[in-house]
Amino acid sequence: MKKYSEMSREELLALKKELDQQFADIKAQGLSLDMSRGKPGMDQLDISMEMMDVLKGDSDLKCETGVDCRNYGVPDGIPEAKRLLGAISEVDPDNIIIFGNSSLNVMFDTVARSMTHGVMGNTPWCKLDKVKFLCPVPGYDRHFKITEFFGIEMINIPMTPEGPDMDMVEKLVSEDAAVKGIWCVPKYSNPQGYTYSEETVKRFAHLKPAAPDFRIYWDNAYSVHHLYDEDQDFLLEILDECAKAGNPDMVYKFTSTSKISFPGSGIAAVAASKANLDDFRKYMQIQTIGHDKLNQLRHVRFFKDLAGVHEHMRKHAALIRPKFQLVDDILTRELDGLGIGEWTKPKGGYFISFESMEGCAKAIVAKAKEAGVVMTGAGATYPYGKDPKDSNIRIAPTYPDLKELEEAAKVFVVCVKLASVEKLLEA
Amino acid sequence: MKKYSEMSREELLALKKELDQQFADIKAQGLSLDMSRGKPGMDQLDISMEMMDVLKGDSDLKCETGVDCRNYGVPDGIPEAKRLLGAISEVDPDNIIIFGNSSLNVMFDTVARSMTHGVMGNTPWCKLDKVKFLCPVPGYDRHFKITEFFGIEMINIPMTPEGPDMDMVEKLVSEDAAVKGIWCVPKYSNPQGYTYSEETVKRFAHLKPAAPDFRIYWDNAYSVHHLYDEDQDFLLEILDECAKAGNPDMVYKFTSTSKISFPGSGIAAVAASKANLDDFRKYMQIQTIGHDKLNQLRHVRFFKDLAGVHEHMRKHAALIRPKFQLVDDILTRELDGLGIGEWTKPKGGYFISFESMEGCAKAIVAKAKEAGVVMTGAGATYPYGKDPKDSNIRIAPTYPDLKELEEAAKVFVVCVKLASVEKLLEA
Repeated sequence: MKKYSEMSREELLALKKELDQQFADIKAQGLSLDMSRGKPGMDQLDISMEMMDVLKGDSDLKCETGVDCRNYGVPDGIPEAKRLLGAISEVDPDNIIIFGNSSLNVMFDTVARSMTHGVMGNTPWCKLDKVKFLCPVPGYDRHFKITEFFGIEMINIPMTPEGPDMDMVEKLVSEDAAVKGIWCVPKYSNPQGYTYSEETVKRFAHLKPAAPDFRIYWDNAYSVHHLYDEDQDFLLEILDECAKAGNPDMVYKFTSTSKISFPGSGIAAVAASKANLDDFRKYMQIQTIGHDKLNQLRHVRFFKDLAGVHEHMRKHAALIRPKFQLVDDILTRELDGLGIGEWTKPKGGYFISFESMEGCAKAIVAKAKEAGVVMTGAGATYPYGKDPKDSNIRIAPTYPDLKELEEAAKVFVVCVKLASVEKLLEA
Repeated sequence: MKKYSEMSREELLALKKELDQQFADIKAQGLSLDMSRGKPGMDQLDISMEMMDVLKGDSDLKCETGVDCRNYGVPDGIPEAKRLLGAISEVDPDNIIIFGNSSLNVMFDTVARSMTHGVMGNTPWCKLDKVKFLCPVPGYDRHFKITEFFGIEMINIPMTPEGPDMDMVEKLVSEDAAVKGIWCVPKYSNPQGYTYSEETVKRFAHLKPAAPDFRIYWDNAYSVHHLYDEDQDFLLEILDECAKAGNPDMVYKFTSTSKISFPGSGIAAVAASKANLDDFRKYMQIQTIGHDKLNQLRHVRFFKDLAGVHEHMRKHAALIRPKFQLVDDILTRELDGLGIGEWTKPKGGYFISFESMEGCAKAIVAKAKEAGVVMTGAGATYPYGKDPKDSNIRIAPTYPDLKELEEAAKVFVVCVKLASVEKLLEA
């Protein structure tokens, strides 16, 4: 394979002609495919269908302490749900609060409450001239949207396969009291699928924040979302590390069952120190009379325990592993050695991160759209939607079926090639 | 019956001795009863148990537009849920957004968002020197807690059987741009069970607010919660009235199925103008990926339509009507003519409002607690927990069974008598 950058203008023009024809052929097919969001496929939803049968009209709907889950009460979660989510989160059930159906909602509310009421007695952020969040990039677009919504200044932190650039994190967190948080997806990160190394987690735990209300937003969305049985990433447990480092209150750990049971109909949880959870409880008792305990009970009776969750996740893995492999195969076959793109090979999570040549991501995504394949918007993986190199594209392979995914991936590589050739011809 | 106020000191002392003995006898029983919160009784929860069976492991879980309710999507509610909650709210489904399990949570979030982002482009309230809410009193404690939490100044508005004192509301709303809202439970109000008259609703619709971002928080929590088939209160539909009066954006109408299906596991909704709902959608799309659509589907398939809801509510009424009657019977038998208390006789809702002699409410609730009967805290029905006359007590008759309720009501009347005698002896 000859690298595109080594081709002559004539070679590029000939290649472009060929690719233009391929692209026209694809457009003529009138495809309508979606690789944009981290949505489970229908077959993944089917494996949780028995959850619909665990609570019946004649079931005992009391939790283990005898509280009737059909009525008001137990605002911070039934004990068995705390135990289950505690096991998933690798923390003691006492360090867990169970919330509603969306951990994103809890993150939003946490930022909102920090704005209006401050964190554990500190000045409300809305009274400060400037509040900043560190944003490892590329990252999760919905995290960035929350901090943007509240007018929080976002600072890009480059990601590496070991996690965020910790030199930069340490410097900014220790020197600037306006830095109040950092968004992290520490395991099978969105979008690269990287897992923070042991050293990275330890350096996080040993941060010396200038701001007493600095918090690590540790969105452990993919903690049990392995693709392989034998070859899994391991993430050091952060609460414990923070406590050992004398920073027990520095982290909020978020989790949910959205991509374990049903997206939108799962349960979410926060793991944190008692002091942090007491701070959460203060506003929770004003905000709501309580969350959906029947759904908590439904989850516990279906999964039973962590072993049940792992068994269930193996079924998910069996369904999505071929999709990740298919995309990787097509990318490898079509792009390897051409010097026009690199991509990650995650062992879990929901995404593959693709790096095109500089200045090509928007053009690739636009071409894919033109050809009937919806990708996550170029730039979405960066704060303010601004990818400084215009090179990152998030690939979400789970939602389409294998046949659709194969088509979509084939369209994608043609778009990558065409946009790259056009870029090189521009130069 | 002789009025207590007409008794001589000797008569009062003799009475006190008798009541002290009764109170001692009650305490000796070691009761543990609860008339504090508007919780449905267990028998009421039982009538919704078939809801557990409507979604099964082999059910089609698509909504009527073909969207799979198990997956992400449709953030503002599936069409059939909008239709059902629209019917309950008496508005067009286009004027409905479906939320999660708690309308209180939506009210909290609405105030929170008004604080940080403002209402429909107006200045965020956190940037204003002063924000005020009008609070018809006695009213719902959890409303007042929300505005207190956000540092909003609350102004008491006396309630009448026709609704809030509208002269006062009109004056304050039209003269003071700091008045941004009013809390209303317009039908079978909490705690009196009053329903706003047609004139009151029309005067609300014709308000001329000084503040462009003034909103009526119309918490229609008990819209279908009648006690009687034949003798029901009627409430004029406020959205329509506001539109006719040229104030289409002036009201948020909240509702939920908390006391229709299962408290904590129901679905909530907001009805409002398109402009207001678009304002809601702006933050919703940042706050969450969506609410629990399976629970929406579960509700629609169980209730089917408004007729199904009404049929279901008749079952609730059959269970709680005797409780309201029992309390009223005991209060009438024991207190009528004594001049030491008055109470409401609601035709729906969840509460009876009791007015003791001035300065007695705290003492009555304290005595009841001493005797093993938990009541809503005295003062809770007023902003900041401060009942200026110390006379209002909210009675919640639904949760105890009839036998417990009878015991609790009997304890209550003894406490009322004893506290009243003690008050008169003090004078």
